[in-house]
Amino acid sequence: MPSIDVCFSPELLPLYDLKGKIAVAVDVLRATSSMVTALAHGVSHIAPVSDLQECLAFREKGYLVAAERDGIKADGFDFGNSPFHYREGVEGKRLAITTTNGTQAIRLSRAADEVLVGAFVNVGAVARYVRAKGKDVVVVCAGWKGLFNLEDTLFAGALAERLQADFHLNHDATLAAYHLYQTAKTDLLGFLSKSSHVQRLERLHILPDIEFCLQEDVYQLVPVLQGDVLVPAELG
Amino acid sequence: MPSIDVCFSPELLPLYDLKGKIAVAVDVLRATSSMVTALAHGVSHIAPVSDLQECLAFREKGYLVAAERDGIKADGFDFGNSPFHYREGVEGKRLAITTTNGTQAIRLSRAADEVLVGAFVNVGAVARYVRAKGKDVVVVCAGWKGLFNLEDTLFAGALAERLQADFHLNHDATLAAYHLYQTAKTDLLGFLSKSSHVQRLERLHILPDIEFCLQEDVYQLVPVLQGDVLVPAELG
Repeated sequence: MPSIDVCFSPELLPLYDLKGKIAVAVDVLRATSSMVTALAHGVSHIAPVSDLQECLAFREKGYLVAAERDGIKADGFDFGNSPFHYREGVEGKRLAITTTNGTQAIRLSRAADEVLVGAFVNVGAVARYVRAKGKDVVVVCAGWKGLFNLEDTLFAGALAERLQADFHLNHDATLAAYHLYQTAKTDLLGFLSKSSHVQRLERLHILPDIEFCLQEDVYQLVPVLQGDVLVPAELG
Repeated sequence: MPSIDVCFSPELLPLYDLKGKIAVAVDVLRATSSMVTALAHGVSHIAPVSDLQECLAFREKGYLVAAERDGIKADGFDFGNSPFHYREGVEGKRLAITTTNGTQAIRLSRAADEVLVGAFVNVGAVARYVRAKGKDVVVVCAGWKGLFNLEDTLFAGALAERLQADFHLNHDATLAAYHLYQTAKTDLLGFLSKSSHVQRLERLHILPDIEFCLQEDVYQLVPVLQGDVLVPAELG
């Protein structure tokens, strides 16, 4: 039986052997929620890039460019990091995006056999995708500047709950994520509202974004890294 | 109001600013439980050291020497890492100890104003000590070879519960530890028995050790780092 493990910070990823495994990169608030939303609304592919200059250069190739630093849209870009930016007018467009934490988690996950992008909005689709593959899974939490965060951990717990019949959950980090999700799942926003990280985001007046990002199964789509870009996977 | 934060792995400690704060190093299974037990049974001081050779060299200075690697007593040493080794015949002796994870957590915590050693067996005493000081606290979990582990996290949650009237708990890691402890506290051993780390320790036939290490408030004593050695703090 395969297992699901959880890496709470990109800083800990060197301790994980991703070879032969599927990595699920997650940055619930808000990078990976936005990426799923963008592909669901017709963006043809997404280039996750590390720095602002590299991202801006994609505009010359005809891409929409999006950048967030410290929760705020960076100057000179088309979009920031809100999923609401990607719900209309993006069909058939290509998107380049760089964010504080999320794009780094994707980049560092490349040692895995496959890299997926997960969020609450597509957690059921991710579960079906990895169950069909039957390989070990490592959830790579983007965290906040290297630190543990609750919302990415709760996503890992939600995924573990959906996989528990077919996957071992006996890694300590997985058990922690699973139990935290059991405590939080009836009111994710209420649970998270005590955290300093979510309080910081609330000060940015993005409560509607947060509420959207905490909805499960809005989209039946899994972004998969192919070469350097994320494309929507076909689900069987 | 001061805050309590939790660092889940020594690998993440470079992200924490310990200056002006109290660090509580914890390796529940079993290094810090053993250290508290040894001082409670009359060991005069403990030198936590990094490597086996350095530790063995203390014997020539008249120390008892203890070493654990991968859960097992290392060859040529007086003791391993079981708290039961330290409950008789140690009064007035000095002890040098090196363990896989615990002594490293203590060493890396030295940037703090004060370094304490915590375990379930002295959690109440640690809470009283840090409450009296009124400074920010960071619990430094030893983890397992750099990875997150549940038992050290549960200790952090137990400490957070006891401090909640006087300390902010709003760091994400602290909230996670606090909620996990709420789920686990009525049956810590049952909760931990699903984890692969505890299963590994159970295979070493140290279940009595584990049961002992999960008891709260056996001792009213806080080991404090003074220079290079741990001594019992006077509690007011």
